[in-house]
Amino acid sequence: MIEFESHIRNVPDFPIKGIQFKDITTLLSDGEVFSNAVDYMYDHFRNAEITKIVGIESRGFIFGAALSYKLNLGFIPVRKPGKLPADTLVEEYQLEYGKDSLEIHMDALGNDDRVLIVDDLLATGGTAAATCNLCERLGAKVLGLAFLIELVDLNGRAKLEGQDVQALIKYSG
Amino acid sequence: MIEFESHIRNVPDFPIKGIQFKDITTLLSDGEVFSNAVDYMYDHFRNAEITKIVGIESRGFIFGAALSYKLNLGFIPVRKPGKLPADTLVEEYQLEYGKDSLEIHMDALGNDDRVLIVDDLLATGGTAAATCNLCERLGAKVLGLAFLIELVDLNGRAKLEGQDVQALIKYSG
Repeated sequence: MIEFESHIRNVPDFPIKGIQFKDITTLLSDGEVFSNAVDYMYDHFRNAEITKIVGIESRGFIFGAALSYKLNLGFIPVRKPGKLPADTLVEEYQLEYGKDSLEIHMDALGNDDRVLIVDDLLATGGTAAATCNLCERLGAKVLGLAFLIELVDLNGRAKLEGQDVQALIKYSG
Repeated sequence: MIEFESHIRNVPDFPIKGIQFKDITTLLSDGEVFSNAVDYMYDHFRNAEITKIVGIESRGFIFGAALSYKLNLGFIPVRKPGKLPADTLVEEYQLEYGKDSLEIHMDALGNDDRVLIVDDLLATGGTAAATCNLCERLGAKVLGLAFLIELVDLNGRAKLEGQDVQALIKYSG
């Protein structure tokens, strides 16, 4: 197996001082590493009967769309407010200071859908939990969540109790 | 060949009154149609010796990443200001009222790169032309631009003179 972590670049003090930003663009820019990362993110779910891939704006689009293409499954974007043109369902979530929200098209999913949610990073879990709620409010079953990176110390899993959460690269300490 | 246009939803008065928005989410949500769209967007460039796929934030990420996965080629994101964490090159472009800009990582491309630029929509061509400039300023050769949709009347091609511009679905009149 490729040592994926060596392809992530650490950028100090981004977006603010004290944060060590995990830059995935160095992984994306290597075609073989990127393709393998997508394959491995899916591997745990290979026997799941997924009907749709849900990708969270905007880096989740990169991994989610690649997986949709691989599996020949529909891709459902979850987006920041005001981006989706038709009728949407909105879910607010808490930020450290203030609130934000995510949207999904009302007709994007239904009772027969079983989805895999894809994003690049699991941090505090706010966007991931909001995305689960959006899918479930539309009647879909969430089969799991696949991340490239998990920042273990931020304990995003606490917000995703009962879900099958998988990450390819885990940072802690 | 799939009749792709029938999978695009027309949303009137979005984002502002009078605009007929071309909603691609109805195409994305059908796995077979999405995969075929990616394949056909690439088809014209099948003999080009592409080294990297460049995707423009954020719907360009969807088609660009799928194509990167298909071709096992590195994916280079071009993003809105302040999103890329390492050193970037910035390119401004004109909007109807005011200016906007796009960024690429300084080390994303080099003299040996030959890129295909991917986005969902060619409208006035501002973001596409800015992306060409970013790639060329880094020494890369632009082999072409692949769009899902072209709004022909907005004449985005005028800003892309000398480039090989392809679109799967063309709207005019």
